[in-house]
Amino acid sequence: MLLKNKIPFRYMFGSIRKEAIMIALYVTFIAAIHFTFRLNVSIPISVPMILGTVISLLLAFRANQAYDRWWEARIIWGAIVNDSRSWARQVVSFIDNPYNDKEIAAFENILINRQVAWSFALGRALRQRKNERDLGKWMSKQDIEFISRYSNSAMGILELQARDLKYALDNGWINTFQHIQMDNTLNKFSDHMGKCERIKNTVFPSTYGLYLHLSMNLFIMLLPFALIAIFGWLMIPLVTLIASCFWLIEKMSIHLQDPFENKPTDTPITTIAETIERDLHQVINQHSLSHSAERVVEAKQFYVL
Amino acid sequence: MLLKNKIPFRYMFGSIRKEAIMIALYVTFIAAIHFTFRLNVSIPISVPMILGTVISLLLAFRANQAYDRWWEARIIWGAIVNDSRSWARQVVSFIDNPYNDKEIAAFENILINRQVAWSFALGRALRQRKNERDLGKWMSKQDIEFISRYSNSAMGILELQARDLKYALDNGWINTFQHIQMDNTLNKFSDHMGKCERIKNTVFPSTYGLYLHLSMNLFIMLLPFALIAIFGWLMIPLVTLIASCFWLIEKMSIHLQDPFENKPTDTPITTIAETIERDLHQVINQHSLSHSAERVVEAKQFYVL
Amino acid sequence: MLLKNKIPFRYMFGSIRKEAIMIALYVTFIAAIHFTFRLNVSIPISVPMILGTVISLLLAFRANQAYDRWWEARIIWGAIVNDSRSWARQVVSFIDNPYNDKEIAAFENILINRQVAWSFALGRALRQRKNERDLGKWMSKQDIEFISRYSNSAMGILELQARDLKYALDNGWINTFQHIQMDNTLNKFSDHMGKCERIKNTVFPSTYGLYLHLSMNLFIMLLPFALIAIFGWLMIPLVTLIASCFWLIEKMSIHLQDPFENKPTDTPITTIAETIERDLHQVINQHSLSHSAERVVEAKQFYVL
Amino acid sequence: MLLKNKIPFRYMFGSIRKEAIMIALYVTFIAAIHFTFRLNVSIPISVPMILGTVISLLLAFRANQAYDRWWEARIIWGAIVNDSRSWARQVVSFIDNPYNDKEIAAFENILINRQVAWSFALGRALRQRKNERDLGKWMSKQDIEFISRYSNSAMGILELQARDLKYALDNGWINTFQHIQMDNTLNKFSDHMGKCERIKNTVFPSTYGLYLHLSMNLFIMLLPFALIAIFGWLMIPLVTLIASCFWLIEKMSIHLQDPFENKPTDTPITTIAETIERDLHQVINQHSLSHSAERVVEAKQFYVL
Amino acid sequence: MLLKNKIPFRYMFGSIRKEAIMIALYVTFIAAIHFTFRLNVSIPISVPMILGTVISLLLAFRANQAYDRWWEARIIWGAIVNDSRSWARQVVSFIDNPYNDKEIAAFENILINRQVAWSFALGRALRQRKNERDLGKWMSKQDIEFISRYSNSAMGILELQARDLKYALDNGWINTFQHIQMDNTLNKFSDHMGKCERIKNTVFPSTYGLYLHLSMNLFIMLLPFALIAIFGWLMIPLVTLIASCFWLIEKMSIHLQDPFENKPTDTPITTIAETIERDLHQVINQHSLSHSAERVVEAKQFYVL
Repeated sequence: MLLKNKIPFRYMFGSIRKEAIMIALYVTFIAAIHFTFRLNVSIPISVPMILGTVISLLLAFRANQAYDRWWEARIIWGAIVNDSRSWARQVVSFIDNPYNDKEIAAFENILINRQVAWSFALGRALRQRKNERDLGKWMSKQDIEFISRYSNSAMGILELQARDLKYALDNGWINTFQHIQMDNTLNKFSDHMGKCERIKNTVFPSTYGLYLHLSMNLFIMLLPFALIAIFGWLMIPLVTLIASCFWLIEKMSIHLQDPFENKPTDTPITTIAETIERDLHQVINQHSLSHSAERVVEAKQFYVL
Repeated sequence: MLLKNKIPFRYMFGSIRKEAIMIALYVTFIAAIHFTFRLNVSIPISVPMILGTVISLLLAFRANQAYDRWWEARIIWGAIVNDSRSWARQVVSFIDNPYNDKEIAAFENILINRQVAWSFALGRALRQRKNERDLGKWMSKQDIEFISRYSNSAMGILELQARDLKYALDNGWINTFQHIQMDNTLNKFSDHMGKCERIKNTVFPSTYGLYLHLSMNLFIMLLPFALIAIFGWLMIPLVTLIASCFWLIEKMSIHLQDPFENKPTDTPITTIAETIERDLHQVINQHSLSHSAERVVEAKQFYVL
Repeated sequence: MLLKNKIPFRYMFGSIRKEAIMIALYVTFIAAIHFTFRLNVSIPISVPMILGTVISLLLAFRANQAYDRWWEARIIWGAIVNDSRSWARQVVSFIDNPYNDKEIAAFENILINRQVAWSFALGRALRQRKNERDLGKWMSKQDIEFISRYSNSAMGILELQARDLKYALDNGWINTFQHIQMDNTLNKFSDHMGKCERIKNTVFPSTYGLYLHLSMNLFIMLLPFALIAIFGWLMIPLVTLIASCFWLIEKMSIHLQDPFENKPTDTPITTIAETIERDLHQVINQHSLSHSAERVVEAKQFYVL
Repeated sequence: MLLKNKIPFRYMFGSIRKEAIMIALYVTFIAAIHFTFRLNVSIPISVPMILGTVISLLLAFRANQAYDRWWEARIIWGAIVNDSRSWARQVVSFIDNPYNDKEIAAFENILINRQVAWSFALGRALRQRKNERDLGKWMSKQDIEFISRYSNSAMGILELQARDLKYALDNGWINTFQHIQMDNTLNKFSDHMGKCERIKNTVFPSTYGLYLHLSMNLFIMLLPFALIAIFGWLMIPLVTLIASCFWLIEKMSIHLQDPFENKPTDTPITTIAETIERDLHQVINQHSLSHSAERVVEAKQFYVL
Repeated sequence: MLLKNKIPFRYMFGSIRKEAIMIALYVTFIAAIHFTFRLNVSIPISVPMILGTVISLLLAFRANQAYDRWWEARIIWGAIVNDSRSWARQVVSFIDNPYNDKEIAAFENILINRQVAWSFALGRALRQRKNERDLGKWMSKQDIEFISRYSNSAMGILELQARDLKYALDNGWINTFQHIQMDNTLNKFSDHMGKCERIKNTVFPSTYGLYLHLSMNLFIMLLPFALIAIFGWLMIPLVTLIASCFWLIEKMSIHLQDPFENKPTDTPITTIAETIERDLHQVINQHSLSHSAERVVEAKQFYVL
């Protein structure tokens, strides 16, 4: 999750600890050769810089693309929030219930609760956790049994919603235009789900990452030779620091490019799903409160204003 | 707000005053060591430049991404203006009022005024100010009581609009196609709201910012060693100036990337909401003026042209 | 306007004349000190280059963003052309006029002419010229009086269109689906108008521009010190030229980022509006020519092919 | 056209032949001065590199923007293919012809053939060739006469399609929803046409290109002075080669940025239009083949599967 | 295909083996001249770096554009998954089958199976394999015969779907609004198909690639002269390594920019088509299971919740 809290320092540097130790040993070894055996291994600093520019550029572009994937994941979940609210609004304002029929009222709640379930189901599927069990909070046993036959449970829930919309249409609770309008909203959920799966399942081009990793290490390997004549033993912390800078930004890209992997920099799926739950439940509560009664009063108000 | 007025100079440099003083002291200290103790700490200028290219690139990319967030925020509020005008036009031209019924006229005004209220409510929520109180200018007491039960008052207002649309549909003031068309406009408002919340709540990847900040400071720390042999004491103002350049642009990115934080570079939410108010009130005034009377005259004009 | 004609040379360089003279004097002054007082002020060329990379990057990114604003403005006006044509096609092919009624024919012309007026009104509003007067070419006096009550006259015209669509719907000239389809086109015009206003009213982040300007000037100030030892007096024209290069590209960005300011690089609003006028009048002419008569003949042709 | 064939080498280098000869003479002249008159004109290589970075960046950004324009043009023509196919499918599957009426069948063919004509008409207009003559292959004489009254013949064709849709609606061959759906497809064609015109008519900002050209030439002018001391006479081919590299990429940008100019790198408009012709004719053939007969058999098949 | 598996190392380096051997020989040759004949061919390292910056930039931009093409291909196939699911949902929930008619049930299966066939047909067409034979798994012989008359078999399948939709409309199994909604889904498939073809058939601008290749080779050719004085014989592996770095990233761009060419880095078309098959078959199974029976029970549940 990536909320307003700070990322723990230890988490950040923990990820490159092994590399940092390795490079420190490597640099110490070179310094030892240089000073103990008095073997001049120094090279001009412009040699590693041949690779420096292209590596910097590719690193920056890669960070950019990783950021784009992460931001796209965030945009999708933002859209899930918006469309969930629209869905709830459509359920409440499209479905006709003039005589305050209990069956229809229950039906409306089912449609809204199932959308909450869908958000949690999708979130857990993306984090590869089994999830049918927990969905009991928002769905009936029958529904859970139904979706357990799907390998993709979020898709099963959309299937259920579509069937119930059809049922409402057949009963005359919604008209055919409203049916199509709400089917459009279901299509949007289907799109969001597919987009999340695309980001989840498509690995960042390995050749890209691998090439960059190799060139960067070649660059870092050349660094101590370039700095030894200038800094002497001081070179050991300096090269370790500079190398850490490069590795850290590479690691950051790797983390950002997979935004659904249970890491601290992830898209805050659970928090977002809880927002959806809160917002949709307020719609349900408000709806059962104000049903039919309030409306009459308001109508009279129109004159007053 | 970011309008055509100039940003005050003091505001700009005030934000990095502390850092500027720190670096000046640090550089003075190094110069003192160099000249007082005659300790040669000079290094070639190409050493800090190893980091220079990658830092410049990341700084530029980051400025770009921050600008994109800021521009996206502006686009969303631009779309809110457009859709608010479209909403007003739809209210006026869709709702049937052939006998100039007072109830319907009042109803139209309510729908339009509530949209003004929504813009202000959203703007204040984004700036984290309580706002139910002030909305009395555009909404009835009853409505304000209604939305006070929502944790998200802008969402509550959309809820009210949806209910009233349903009421109009049930009374035959609009037909089912117009209902769906106007529901689409409400969906757009829901989307705009969600997008604003996404930008507001999603922090820019902390690892990105933190890494860049650390590398940049390492780069700045190395600068005085590189410049001391060339400039001597003159180095003190020069390094301070160069470091300020880098910090200023980092600060600028940090400000731009959070466009809803009550700072001078913010999206001008209030100004935009006032434009909406002005435009929508002109529609209401014009509407009440020209109601039914004017139309007859115009119809006759068609022959003349 | 930015058409196929060349930008006059004088215009281009005229914009940085003052800066060019200033820098020439400054460089001459430094050269004078260097050679007259034999004071060695020379520094290595790598010193200004610390700022060189980051300035180049930001300058390029800024040029890119300015280009994007300019191109977006052009895209919006391109879309206005497309939608104006679609509007005319919808007016001609949606509105039912089986008995070739003169009132309906006049009504169609009014709807199309008003769209032409809208393009000109929007164009002039963006260039901040008063425009109600000139619109008499395409609109009746009554309409002009109507829109003069709006602070935004383009919005007033859309209002008029919406009212007349309603009038056509009430008279049975179009059906309810066609009404909604044409209302969608009006929404698009509303969007285009709002997008133009957004670009017009949103200043490019001042901190961005200001910072870049300051760093660039610091960079240019350091240049003569770096070049004096190499070029001697020849440095004066060289530094002036290099500085002019940087300033020119900065000026270009400033011009491109505000595409509605009456400058030679502007979006060619008037030319585009004239294209709309030409295209829409051809539709009107063709329509009045071929009305009802031609159709019968064509129907018979179907067999022949 | 830009198809899988290789670009001829001669074409590529032919475009910068003149510049290459000029620079070779210029470099020879400088070498002559240097060696004949023993006048040392050598400067350090870091002097031209002050401009090197910013020129490289702007060149790369410009190549990027030119590529974007070219790719946008390609996307538009890809969308024209898709929408043409959708149009044909709508014509065949929307229009009701239960009794296999010959007039309706001919009418369907006209609508599809006219779309083929539209693709060719648009393609030729973009390449500024007169085109009414050749359209006789797909349109009747009457239609060609009709569109000859338009300055924009592709727009005239869309006008014809809209009129015939109206005719079909009036005759009850399509219903009002199908009318609006097909009108949407016409709107898309109108959009594609307008987008092509936008790219065709909007010149790439001249100031951008001009500035870059001037700075690049200043950079190239400085190169021989920087290389003469290192390479001697060998510098002549080397500078010519490096300068050619820079000019070639500039030329490439200039070609890519205008994708409708009859050059080998153009969007393959004619090839695409021929694909549309082939695909749409297959729809017509299939349609006349299978009309009404095949359907009965298939219906029975449903049980078997 | 580009799934979570690692790319084999041999594959990666196999692609530049020939170039690596060539450059090794070339560098050895230059070293031989230098040391055997004692001919000083050394040049300063800043000479190749004139080209270094612009090559790095263009290489990075090109990698970026290649990545964009590859990602766009992935987005299109992601959208195909989403829309296939939506299609299945629409088939199941739109088509009316109150008396559980066997013909209608079979009809629904045909529509869904054909969409599976379409995915495989499109995938194979993009990889230029003949494919009518294998489609027998999801389509009747009659259908296969039908599409064999099309040069584009995926387009033929969409044609079949459109005809069957029309058949369902004529029989009253779907209403006119549902017909248009499902026709929209077919339009989307048409768009996806066309977009894939666009990426497949549009070669990356050859001039771009060729220019970059030539400049890069010029840069690499200059490298050994710059490094020989520093590294001596050690230069041979070093230059080979650095050159390999540049060639590898160029190769990577070339592979990414053509995402439908049967290479290990391709878009995983077959895997995606199999996902579609799995998901759509679950819909069919579930549908035949729960048909009409389950619904009654669920309806009663509404009270309980």
